[in-house]
Amino acid sequence: MKKEAALKQIANRLRHHVLHMTTRAGSGHPTTCLSSAELMACLFFSEMKYNVNNPQDLANDEFVLSKGHAAPILWAAYTEAGIVPFQDLSKFRTFSSSLEGHPTPRMPWVKVATGSLGQGLSAGIGMAIAQRLHNSPARTFVLMGDGECAEGSVWEAASLAQKQQLSNLVAIIDVNRLGQSGESLHGKHADVWKKKFESFGWNTLVVDGHHVPSILAAFKHFQTLKCPSVLIAKTIKGRGVSFLEDKEGWHGKALSPVELIDALRELGSIPSVDAKKLVQHPKKSIKQTASWITVPQIHYKLGEQVATREAYGSMLAKLGKYSRIVVLDGDVKNSTFAEKFKAIYPRRFVDSFIAEQNMVGMAMGLAAKGLIPFASTFAAFLTRAHDQLRMAAISRLNLKCVGSHAGVSIGEDGPSQMGLEDIALFRSLPESVVLYPCDAVSAENCTALLAQSKGVGYLRTTRPKTSVIYKSTDSFNIGGSKLLVRGKDVLIIAAGITVHESLKAAQLLKQKGISASVLDAYSIKPLDAKTIRAQAKGKQVIVMEDHYAQGGLGEAVASLGIPITHLCVKEIPRSGKADVLLAYYKIDADAICKAVKLN
Amino acid sequence: MKKEAALKQIANRLRHHVLHMTTRAGSGHPTTCLSSAELMACLFFSEMKYNVNNPQDLANDEFVLSKGHAAPILWAAYTEAGIVPFQDLSKFRTFSSSLEGHPTPRMPWVKVATGSLGQGLSAGIGMAIAQRLHNSPARTFVLMGDGECAEGSVWEAASLAQKQQLSNLVAIIDVNRLGQSGESLHGKHADVWKKKFESFGWNTLVVDGHHVPSILAAFKHFQTLKCPSVLIAKTIKGRGVSFLEDKEGWHGKALSPVELIDALRELGSIPSVDAKKLVQHPKKSIKQTASWITVPQIHYKLGEQVATREAYGSMLAKLGKYSRIVVLDGDVKNSTFAEKFKAIYPRRFVDSFIAEQNMVGMAMGLAAKGLIPFASTFAAFLTRAHDQLRMAAISRLNLKCVGSHAGVSIGEDGPSQMGLEDIALFRSLPESVVLYPCDAVSAENCTALLAQSKGVGYLRTTRPKTSVIYKSTDSFNIGGSKLLVRGKDVLIIAAGITVHESLKAAQLLKQKGISASVLDAYSIKPLDAKTIRAQAKGKQVIVMEDHYAQGGLGEAVASLGIPITHLCVKEIPRSGKADVLLAYYKIDADAICKAVKLN
Repeated sequence: MKKEAALKQIANRLRHHVLHMTTRAGSGHPTTCLSSAELMACLFFSEMKYNVNNPQDLANDEFVLSKGHAAPILWAAYTEAGIVPFQDLSKFRTFSSSLEGHPTPRMPWVKVATGSLGQGLSAGIGMAIAQRLHNSPARTFVLMGDGECAEGSVWEAASLAQKQQLSNLVAIIDVNRLGQSGESLHGKHADVWKKKFESFGWNTLVVDGHHVPSILAAFKHFQTLKCPSVLIAKTIKGRGVSFLEDKEGWHGKALSPVELIDALRELGSIPSVDAKKLVQHPKKSIKQTASWITVPQIHYKLGEQVATREAYGSMLAKLGKYSRIVVLDGDVKNSTFAEKFKAIYPRRFVDSFIAEQNMVGMAMGLAAKGLIPFASTFAAFLTRAHDQLRMAAISRLNLKCVGSHAGVSIGEDGPSQMGLEDIALFRSLPESVVLYPCDAVSAENCTALLAQSKGVGYLRTTRPKTSVIYKSTDSFNIGGSKLLVRGKDVLIIAAGITVHESLKAAQLLKQKGISASVLDAYSIKPLDAKTIRAQAKGKQVIVMEDHYAQGGLGEAVASLGIPITHLCVKEIPRSGKADVLLAYYKIDADAICKAVKLN
Repeated sequence: MKKEAALKQIANRLRHHVLHMTTRAGSGHPTTCLSSAELMACLFFSEMKYNVNNPQDLANDEFVLSKGHAAPILWAAYTEAGIVPFQDLSKFRTFSSSLEGHPTPRMPWVKVATGSLGQGLSAGIGMAIAQRLHNSPARTFVLMGDGECAEGSVWEAASLAQKQQLSNLVAIIDVNRLGQSGESLHGKHADVWKKKFESFGWNTLVVDGHHVPSILAAFKHFQTLKCPSVLIAKTIKGRGVSFLEDKEGWHGKALSPVELIDALRELGSIPSVDAKKLVQHPKKSIKQTASWITVPQIHYKLGEQVATREAYGSMLAKLGKYSRIVVLDGDVKNSTFAEKFKAIYPRRFVDSFIAEQNMVGMAMGLAAKGLIPFASTFAAFLTRAHDQLRMAAISRLNLKCVGSHAGVSIGEDGPSQMGLEDIALFRSLPESVVLYPCDAVSAENCTALLAQSKGVGYLRTTRPKTSVIYKSTDSFNIGGSKLLVRGKDVLIIAAGITVHESLKAAQLLKQKGISASVLDAYSIKPLDAKTIRAQAKGKQVIVMEDHYAQGGLGEAVASLGIPITHLCVKEIPRSGKADVLLAYYKIDADAICKAVKLN
């Protein structure tokens, strides 16, 4: 049998699986799978090379199903490839199965969870950059829907893929015209997508997405080109079943058992072709290596004035000796001090321009390939990538974010530049680590701790210079804290910039005969609950933070069941000098003194 | 004097002001102002029409400074127009001044805060749509930088402006080549921006952005066209001062007093032209009218099964009789039930496709023009617009968001579709209101309460149907709660889906001889602290929510100083049936019973 005919048959096998799975589950998105059946068959059984025995083989081509609701056809393709046992398909969407409603890395061939649309291309760029850094000949393929191409993150990614000249990246748009609740942005006009991608500097080809020879020819053509390529495939949603084809009202709906019978009759009997024999393998495996990261030496003098953001840059540059460290920036590298890394390791530095969604999305892809990405920008602007961060957490990716210019202490630039909700954002990500150091020594340590730890981690840094209060040999750990002053009446819990105000306050209170403890809660998540509980006993507990009241350090302490006096930013702040703002919003030493309740 | 010559002189007056202001403040972004001086002069003193006595006049053309760091030249332009007193410029960036480092609506001509880049075009679209809805001949102008055009939100906006055929929208890109830390995406190649916008269906013209006659001619040409138009202006950052022109290292840096003297010498003496005389006024004022919104009647039977998301759609359709209500959707209107509004009021319904940033950005612009936008999508996908929501809160805009499909109770679709951090997100927005109703009656009431209230509001709705537990005549209020069951041993605080599990638990506990109170905390922010404190006395307090532990209802209660037993989603969830998930993640009736500590 000719390859084209076999692929056509595999496409129909995929259709059979998809309809069975979704009807059995009683939910799911069959019609969007049917439109991509030939594309999936051509990708998995002709164009892509992968070692079926090892999803971590760096020689593997990568595949990202950006249109994550088409999960059934992904699971079906892995079954045809011999990776997922056939009987597992019937467990689709059940609690015990790793074949979830939308792809997650519970299934090990999925490296990045999808289902929040428009994120896959960014992840694919990260993977393609990782493949280049690993000197692998492998490529990355991203299957998108036309609906999700309305997402801006797609165009951030399109810009960057061109800028990075990623010839090892191929996107495929399944232009099936219909979104969930109506026609997509350009309906059947596939040519508009072609024009758009062309203007963004991509190679483009429009093909009939159900015509196997055209798809194969397009992929072959792309292999010879230098820029990233996109295949714009004109397809029909529900293809193969007359009562589903190009019909509204069928998105995200499984067929009833009776409808299934009708549909399967139209598709004909399931073709008997052994797809496994068509799987293309890479010529040679490439192993991942990962050396243990030790904390590089740190040198500061007590009392030295250094901004924690600058210390972050210094440690980043030191960590650069580990080839897994990659750094991403959103055109603020001279403010976050990530430029220190770029100066030494330009090849592992990705200038992401002002496009935070794609910056974090690329970091997802880099992390998925075993690298340790640090993505830094102003804390406030990480809110732009909240959805990507959410998906990174669900994916359990090893991704580090660093937000500088946190809080009102940035001063004159005003509220748009002040990160005041970033702790709330990062604390709410499942399994995340949140660190907020107050001086250069702890900032360098926290940076190294993030590099060593697993999962999504966040480091919050401060704009103004602060005094070094720790010895260069002091040790820090995730879940730790430092009791800086021991007192018996009041416990002041602070982090970052407010630690310094707390130390001043303890001095002032001492003069009034009040004995205050000061605790540096640099590990905001996990919090050092044991120490805080022990130290809080019998004392008034004051938590002071340069953050809004909700979701920050204060609520973290309160959630331990400890009543607190909460000093934080309680209104929309404005421009002004840093010290004026700290005083006005009552997060300075004076505010602490006034907050102490005398018995 | 000819108009062109006068405008050239005004541009130089603006340059003088900007350099003075920033040096006096000791910070700010002078060079990005200098590149846009001629553009600003042509806009404010030739092309735009506005009533200097009333920023709220609906006949006014609107201006959005998307490149918010160029605030000094905005304040300078308003001074030249006679709106801001000259002496106020010297207070720029000081605490008492409304002339902040980046524009905020503290200065009443600014309707939307900018400074987080790439958001202005979306806001501008919202304003242009509002102008159309108001039957005003006015137009909206948005000045962007080339750097921020890397943001995906710009391309979401570009797509939608074309789809909406907004001939009353004009964008201007100040292509000054340099970003903060290096060259922007396309450097001096203004033609690439032209190609990109053309492929997105816009009218485009490339001009020398320092040549007044070319700018004026381009604006005149745009007046005759049907689609949105973009002027791509080739400029020089720092234009007019040789040691600043096209130089790296000058972004966000004020000149020293000595440098200022040199710069002013180059600019020459300040031209004496009375710009006020050139301000163009609208032919006829248009007043805003705003009728008070009363709660429409609600009809449900006790015990009826209705999803709160559907009740939201029903109330939205009823509220449609108020012409200020506008609804935006991100291609899920059949899931959020916003389609009920579209069916009756299609003109006030904005299909935003799958582009949540632009959806919320447009809502900002609509709210800024006195309308009341409701933007609804899945709760999880509102994280995509976190930065826009942050800016909306800073702008104190009257913007309502509705997130459906909250929590693990959505079932099989899996974690990517589950909103589990949305309460944390919306609680952390300053001055926000967060409502989470448990049945159709409270959901309709909460929808109406949001329409009546000021500021950023959030309504959280649930996917599955739930029993109607309230009488149609029951009343609800922001900051309220409902004590559903009175008991003496335990207080169960819940909201949304968990209220129903709490009621079941109270029954089960009763059988065991434990007397439990159940409180429906439908107003999560502001929380009914008084009632909760009173009811909590002497009882074990259990808070149960379909949300992650951080930033939600539990921490809100804990922050009142009340120790709680917290039942919530504590790990990354997975696909499965809703009841299986509620049980597995321990947020069901059974979990409450197990959490009760027997004394």
